[in-house]
Amino acid sequence: MPTITEPVSFTFRDEVRQSDVAAVRQLVHETGFFSSAEVDIAVELVVDRLEKQAASDYHFLFADQQPAEGTAGRVLGYACFGEIPCTVGSYDLYWIATDVQFQGQGIGRKLLQQAEERIRQRGGRHVYAETSSRVQYASTRRFYELRGYDAASTLEDFYGPGDGKVTYRKILPAPGQFALR
Amino acid sequence: MPTITEPVSFTFRDEVRQSDVAAVRQLVHETGFFSSAEVDIAVELVVDRLEKQAASDYHFLFADQQPAEGTAGRVLGYACFGEIPCTVGSYDLYWIATDVQFQGQGIGRKLLQQAEERIRQRGGRHVYAETSSRVQYASTRRFYELRGYDAASTLEDFYGPGDGKVTYRKILPAPGQFALR
Repeated sequence: MPTITEPVSFTFRDEVRQSDVAAVRQLVHETGFFSSAEVDIAVELVVDRLEKQAASDYHFLFADQQPAEGTAGRVLGYACFGEIPCTVGSYDLYWIATDVQFQGQGIGRKLLQQAEERIRQRGGRHVYAETSSRVQYASTRRFYELRGYDAASTLEDFYGPGDGKVTYRKILPAPGQFALR
Repeated sequence: MPTITEPVSFTFRDEVRQSDVAAVRQLVHETGFFSSAEVDIAVELVVDRLEKQAASDYHFLFADQQPAEGTAGRVLGYACFGEIPCTVGSYDLYWIATDVQFQGQGIGRKLLQQAEERIRQRGGRHVYAETSSRVQYASTRRFYELRGYDAASTLEDFYGPGDGKVTYRKILPAPGQFALR
């Protein structure tokens, strides 16, 4: 019989901390979905934000476990997004990942919803998310498709032979409009 | 009667010089095709190469006018390309531009051909070039289409309302194969 886990409590945090460098490296690596070069890039964006602060093109959102008294809250998941240079209102969702031990609890969904809300508040109209066409990424593609994203383009063999790039896009409701929940 | 201009003589150069920072800024700006944010990015890539040298992701090719004795050769055009991070053999043609005073002499075509050859020698299989769907960029799109590039994807309103992104792709002949000239 599968273990029934109590849903974990967490809070959102926008500010990036020095400890996120190691937390993001471990979390992204442990998903098993990313190459070491990709893990390095995920970490570089955290470092860019820490160094440049508000001048960085990368914005973050962390889901922190509500800490037990006297302990630090563990990072359960995070999203990284930013306006694509030389566009007006097109944002890239560069990263979204949930700790493998806490998947299936809606953390990714809530991170995505909150990230989209922040993008909308900044004047973003479109959110783009790129992923692989390989069968291993079917759950990632389904994640976006269930949340209003369309596969706007596919470039075959982009990442490598047999490994195409699928670009998902969601058109956000304009400010003042309300999305159906 | 139109003036008949003698074709200008030029040589190719792969190394980036400090003077290219100003040359690229002026050349790209004067084409009239790029916003000031885009011009800044073109210049940043030159600076990245100068600072990081071989560790930079950006490779360059310049077309220098054959200088008259005792003068420096003027930059007539340039291309900037590099392997797209986290791909195997996919290259982006980040920039290609010819001095407005020397357009129509085949400099862009020769720069593109030479850049593709360098990409092929590095193991590149695909070359990607992004441009705008706007009517002002019809000549740019035609430039790629005449040289074996296909419009592999179009993302509407990507750069802004009414301003889509067209991604062109050329599949290069494998090493040992020869392209038809």
